[in-house]
Amino acid sequence: MSPIIIGAPMRLISLAPLAVAVSKAGGIGFIGAGTDVHDLEAHLREVARLFTQAPIDVNLSSALPIGVGFINWGANLDEAVNAIEKFKPAAVWFFAPHKNRDLVQWTQMMREATQGTTKIWIQVGSVRDGLEVATWCHPDVIVVQGSDAGGHGLERGAGIISLLPETADALDEAGFGHIPLVAAGGVVDGRGVAACLALGAEGVVMGTRFLASDEASIARGYQDAVLRTKDGGVSTVRTKVYDTLRGTTGWPECIGGRGIINQSFLDAKDGQVTEENKRAYAQALEQGDLGWAENKRLTAYAGTAVGLINKVRSAADIVNEVREHVREIQSGRPRKISKL
Amino acid sequence: MSPIIIGAPMRLISLAPLAVAVSKAGGIGFIGAGTDVHDLEAHLREVARLFTQAPIDVNLSSALPIGVGFINWGANLDEAVNAIEKFKPAAVWFFAPHKNRDLVQWTQMMREATQGTTKIWIQVGSVRDGLEVATWCHPDVIVVQGSDAGGHGLERGAGIISLLPETADALDEAGFGHIPLVAAGGVVDGRGVAACLALGAEGVVMGTRFLASDEASIARGYQDAVLRTKDGGVSTVRTKVYDTLRGTTGWPECIGGRGIINQSFLDAKDGQVTEENKRAYAQALEQGDLGWAENKRLTAYAGTAVGLINKVRSAADIVNEVREHVREIQSGRPRKISKL
Repeated sequence: MSPIIIGAPMRLISLAPLAVAVSKAGGIGFIGAGTDVHDLEAHLREVARLFTQAPIDVNLSSALPIGVGFINWGANLDEAVNAIEKFKPAAVWFFAPHKNRDLVQWTQMMREATQGTTKIWIQVGSVRDGLEVATWCHPDVIVVQGSDAGGHGLERGAGIISLLPETADALDEAGFGHIPLVAAGGVVDGRGVAACLALGAEGVVMGTRFLASDEASIARGYQDAVLRTKDGGVSTVRTKVYDTLRGTTGWPECIGGRGIINQSFLDAKDGQVTEENKRAYAQALEQGDLGWAENKRLTAYAGTAVGLINKVRSAADIVNEVREHVREIQSGRPRKISKL
Repeated sequence: MSPIIIGAPMRLISLAPLAVAVSKAGGIGFIGAGTDVHDLEAHLREVARLFTQAPIDVNLSSALPIGVGFINWGANLDEAVNAIEKFKPAAVWFFAPHKNRDLVQWTQMMREATQGTTKIWIQVGSVRDGLEVATWCHPDVIVVQGSDAGGHGLERGAGIISLLPETADALDEAGFGHIPLVAAGGVVDGRGVAACLALGAEGVVMGTRFLASDEASIARGYQDAVLRTKDGGVSTVRTKVYDTLRGTTGWPECIGGRGIINQSFLDAKDGQVTEENKRAYAQALEQGDLGWAENKRLTAYAGTAVGLINKVRSAADIVNEVREHVREIQSGRPRKISKL
């Protein structure tokens, strides 16, 4: 269904319920397998169960009409291939390998294991990475992530407004113009989706928007922080502080995570010793949802569009409303141009 | 003429020839008066002369169909008012006051001096700034600048993809939905313009694109750097280093300038002593255009969309091609386009 709305594979958050809900609504849902794939089979079994319960008409012709996202620097290739071979999801999504070359083996093994049923999506944050993965892996889809995205991405890069067109032109010139691009980063509503389509994207990824969905696997405190936060550009920051505090080490040096600014970040910026900050973080964890309260310490990854989100909705409502909103925009509602 | 294309008031670069060329092509050209307005009258006289030579049909009904951009922390209010009163340009554009409150007096005096002929445009980079200037100044236009913009802007902020819609919603909710928004930051072609229109902008500003115009007042070395640079998100950076080296101090703490990464920046990042870096910068200045060569030191402010620019064109060609490109996109024709 057009436009194609994709649910980002958010680690720990995009699990079977969210991925299935997005795909059932006619989008493409992704499970965030992340770095640890030991329980991926269980998640895929749950996906299969949810689909069997209620057969649906979806975009995707595969055994399992959802995708699976890996964080490749950490995920175990053999375990991953085993799970994918068994369930043959519509797509796998690769992100953040130690080096792009590592994705060649991932691509080959996934294609062999599923006889090409499972499509290869690769996420990039720069033109160079786009050209490299196109040349080496011939992916079925390239996900172009702009700097406004929540969670992990390039520490320094362009927003989708310039990154998508430049990547598209460079790929085209290099003979890869046939690879569809999907845009990610800073989109939570029909305006953002319509903008990405105008830029040349053939589908649009939303992550932060689905943090405030009924089906997200997310703490109430985190979700409340998403609803509360306004002025997303200045109230979020891309940093390595949150990884450090959570003990998620292993990310490539060029990558940081965008999250809502909180006391942990402010203290780290003011020079607080890491061990002390970690201790305070551990204490905040014990507070549960309160650990995400204003001026508190827990990590809430979110993109710059977080300020546009005011309500928790069902994933289906989100997908449907965004699509309708795009159609309204494309049909040319009047603008206030005379006032200039 | 729709869509409305605006030439950014780039200090030292957007002078009479560029501003007039943009307006003659049916856009809205701005002179970059910047912080030093002592010669503004001379520039405006030149604008008037260029228009008298060749009367044209333009968007704007005023004595002088161009605008003037000020950098308000540095510009002298009385001098500025004198020049504006004399020539009554279509608009003045305020940016980077010490505090937003300072713009109240600027607004009042400009309106009084021109009996409202000269419209008030105010540039912001966050939702909060948008609300403050709307409340205090009731500007005629708000320019919403995303993080991809070249030159000066908020050190930390959102790209236009999320900043424009969030600012629009916040203004609307506060009763300022009637103020037209124009988008800036990361746009150099029809795709970017069409995207901004979808986001809700009523006009779109281009700066970096006009660096590579025949009419820009720009060193050949700088212009060559613009044409040469690719992968704009990773090859540019927002930093205070370039201001420091050029001795342009006085910018509010929250603001930095995005420029092409060069040896000056890399050395500063590696901890080179500022005085040493400044000495090397002064030497590079003596090299003229060569000072902008690869691995050299001179500042070349540019936005993340710099990688999309391959050719120097006339401002009229740029404006016309962008407008045509937007129409193609909006009518849903295929988007693979020839090189800008």
